[in-house]
Amino acid sequence: MNEVTPRERKKILVVSAHPEPRSLNAALASFAVGHLRAAGHEVRVSDLYAMKWKATVDADDFPEHAPDRRLHVMAASERATLAGRLAPDIAAEQEKVRWSDAVILQFPMWWFSVPAMLKGWIDRVFTSGFAYGPEVPPPYGDSALAGRRALVSVTVGARETAFSDRGIHGSLADVLHPVQHGLFWFTGMTPLEPFAVHGTNELPQERYAATQAAYARRLDGLFTERPVPYRSLTGGDYDHDMRLLPGVESPGTSGLGLHVRPAGSG
Amino acid sequence: MNEVTPRERKKILVVSAHPEPRSLNAALASFAVGHLRAAGHEVRVSDLYAMKWKATVDADDFPEHAPDRRLHVMAASERATLAGRLAPDIAAEQEKVRWSDAVILQFPMWWFSVPAMLKGWIDRVFTSGFAYGPEVPPPYGDSALAGRRALVSVTVGARETAFSDRGIHGSLADVLHPVQHGLFWFTGMTPLEPFAVHGTNELPQERYAATQAAYARRLDGLFTERPVPYRSLTGGDYDHDMRLLPGVESPGTSGLGLHVRPAGSG
Repeated sequence: MNEVTPRERKKILVVSAHPEPRSLNAALASFAVGHLRAAGHEVRVSDLYAMKWKATVDADDFPEHAPDRRLHVMAASERATLAGRLAPDIAAEQEKVRWSDAVILQFPMWWFSVPAMLKGWIDRVFTSGFAYGPEVPPPYGDSALAGRRALVSVTVGARETAFSDRGIHGSLADVLHPVQHGLFWFTGMTPLEPFAVHGTNELPQERYAATQAAYARRLDGLFTERPVPYRSLTGGDYDHDMRLLPGVESPGTSGLGLHVRPAGSG
Repeated sequence: MNEVTPRERKKILVVSAHPEPRSLNAALASFAVGHLRAAGHEVRVSDLYAMKWKATVDADDFPEHAPDRRLHVMAASERATLAGRLAPDIAAEQEKVRWSDAVILQFPMWWFSVPAMLKGWIDRVFTSGFAYGPEVPPPYGDSALAGRRALVSVTVGARETAFSDRGIHGSLADVLHPVQHGLFWFTGMTPLEPFAVHGTNELPQERYAATQAAYARRLDGLFTERPVPYRSLTGGDYDHDMRLLPGVESPGTSGLGLHVRPAGSG
């Protein structure tokens, strides 16, 4: 890896969620931080377990919400966001996301999704008024958090074939759709292909070296590699009810793959 | 709704996750409990916010884990499960699931997934040795929790078309795949089609009556309606690497729909 030039220097937020500081996830997060800093980038870290991040949304997130009033979560979070009156831990994370040119999420796949700790970061930080909502551009494209790249770095216990296109668990892209398309792309971030390490229940030392090298290559391409070519909501592919127009997809495509532009197009 | 006969009486666990006791989610959970009890069923409730459920997996979940030793989550949870030494709150929820003939999950869709609170119930309760693992039958079919029906009851802010087969969010079935196929079917439970209420940011009173009536019909069919016909791992449709065999699917099917048997087959 070579050091980047001053104008290639970027700001990167690494969010990690694993309870064990000696875990593979912790090692990968720490490797990413070191590697990106050595390249000349500025890096901030949200190590959610170390921060004792509060994982669940409740009325305490909105200090001005009157306790006797019914809590409408989205409305209360939007009001608090626009008034600058969110709980300080949420506001601090929003500031980090806003500061960043790229966000990396490091987590173990648990039950085909992010751990509750990371889900709680997503649920609490990406409020209406900050990440989506009537005050920001429409979702899926040039929206609230546009201009930021987004990378999932995930460890997976199961073997790779089980997450392949015909694998029983579903393809990794489909299983991660709620994060890749539902969080990143919805809010305007630019999702890259996930970096996944499979078969991690037993990862021998020699595989770790190869894993680290592969991850280094992905980190080096963070701002240059081709992102997942999701379709934008306002790009002409969807109708007014947010349904893909007939015949836009390649023949034989169904399911979540509909929302990716075919290779060679656009 | 008619009362069931004594031999049709079942045990049902309702798990709900919303911070506001006056929310639509709380109303639906409470309606389900009342309706099922009136029909003669036995019902237990896990109201996760009311219980102040601990949402995040950590070493405290495994009281015999030595604090100075590296925590391998799956291995530690499997040892604690098999030794009957899980944290008492986890053991109590496992007992409820084991007791049940059906599990209903009631939640608002947040970021295309369950709220962190509910994810934490899934992450902590469905341990190796209880819900999957070397000591129980293989996943996706007649596995650890076989014999139990499973129903998602979800409220969704967005309009229904955006979650249709060509909707930009992905079909509801695909978005809920990590729960329906990844949790329920993986552990051997029998998933039903989700019960979803859309457009819930503003739900007028007159729509609530219709919603309740529709939910009542689903609850009445809890033990009789046709489940989602997912393919079983050992039913001959997958190879030894857990990939779907070529040509098993209907022409034109791709994505997560591959893992559902075509209508009229089987």
